Amino acid sequence: MEILKKAILEKGIVVDEHTLKVDSFLNHQIDTALISSMARELVRRFSGYPANRILTIESSGIPLAFMMGYFLRIPVVFAKKTKPSTLSGQTYSAESYSFTRKKHYSMIVSQEFLPPGEDVLIADDFLAGGGAVTALMDLIRQAGSRVTGVAIAVEKGFQGGGDMLRHSGIPLESLAVISSLNNGIIQFRD
Amino acid sequence: MEILKKAILEKGIVVDEHTLKVDSFLNHQIDTALISSMARELVRRFSGYPANRILTIESSGIPLAFMMGYFLRIPVVFAKKTKPSTLSGQTYSAESYSFTRKKHYSMIVSQEFLPPGEDVLIADDFLAGGGAVTALMDLIRQAGSRVTGVAIAVEKGFQGGGDMLRHSGIPLESLAVISSLNNGIIQFRD
Repeated sequence: MEILKKAILEKGIVVDEHTLKVDSFLNHQIDTALISSMARELVRRFSGYPANRILTIESSGIPLAFMMGYFLRIPVVFAKKTKPSTLSGQTYSAESYSFTRKKHYSMIVSQEFLPPGEDVLIADDFLAGGGAVTALMDLIRQAGSRVTGVAIAVEKGFQGGGDMLRHSGIPLESLAVISSLNNGIIQFRD
Repeated sequence: MEILKKAILEKGIVVDEHTLKVDSFLNHQIDTALISSMARELVRRFSGYPANRILTIESSGIPLAFMMGYFLRIPVVFAKKTKPSTLSGQTYSAESYSFTRKKHYSMIVSQEFLPPGEDVLIADDFLAGGGAVTALMDLIRQAGSRVTGVAIAVEKGFQGGGDMLRHSGIPLESLAVISSLNNGIIQFRD
């Protein structure tokens, strides 16, 4: 998606060869018009697929997931990384590892909000090694529902998660796929 | 706001006299149409006020804040509760206490995304004792900007934060003000 690639080139900061900082428009300060356009494009790309709800993980996946749910008129559920005192009842949980935060964490979702027999679209801001998406897929399967596909803003293609999903046959749409951050230069996959 | 009060009455769960669970539509599973209507109403109520950006705190304030920013065509910034490895550079921070999670936490925001000389509207899903809002106001003042006002979905009026803000002259709009959760009954302030 050209406007996203343009924003990444103009505003993204290469921290090191593994890390791209896009917090000026995607995950700390939010460019609401850009996120809206991105959500519209992802909804278009998944227009042939069934989706009863969207599942994401707090926090930075929420704006994109929310806007997709708004356009599709379906609910959005966000898995939580810590269990608040008001989250009682039965939950599903899955483990993931964050390369950004360099730690393992649990994803928790109330069973009530991930019912069986549905088609669930996963959305997130970043896809790197695929750990977060794999854990979200695990939650959906625990619930007895189906994974419609995975909608991603920025895929770090050189970290393998995206290709792993493609090879396993999961429909994946990434609006920008970065092939390399070497030498401080952002390169996109064609 | 009647549709929000209706949702609270129909779907809210009184956990105890201090705690209302609204995670079926507001902060775990998100009713995207309802949040959109709520954001539109809050934007209408603040239509006479200047606002360069919206500030909220992750995670559950994000959908409402995002949608307000989308309607107003201004950026949204969410303060973070933990510092990710990509958040380098200068930050502002403030301390708050969460009654829900029963712990103190820091709010962190990059100085870059809270510039001086602006009018900043605060948005959040809940207002109880006022600790989170007070900390967000602290961040805005550290930045040398002005607090336009505070936009809230659900105010627990009996916990005092809202009245404290009103008495200090801060424009506050809460879409639903709960006066009591005693005996498992949800009562609204007129």
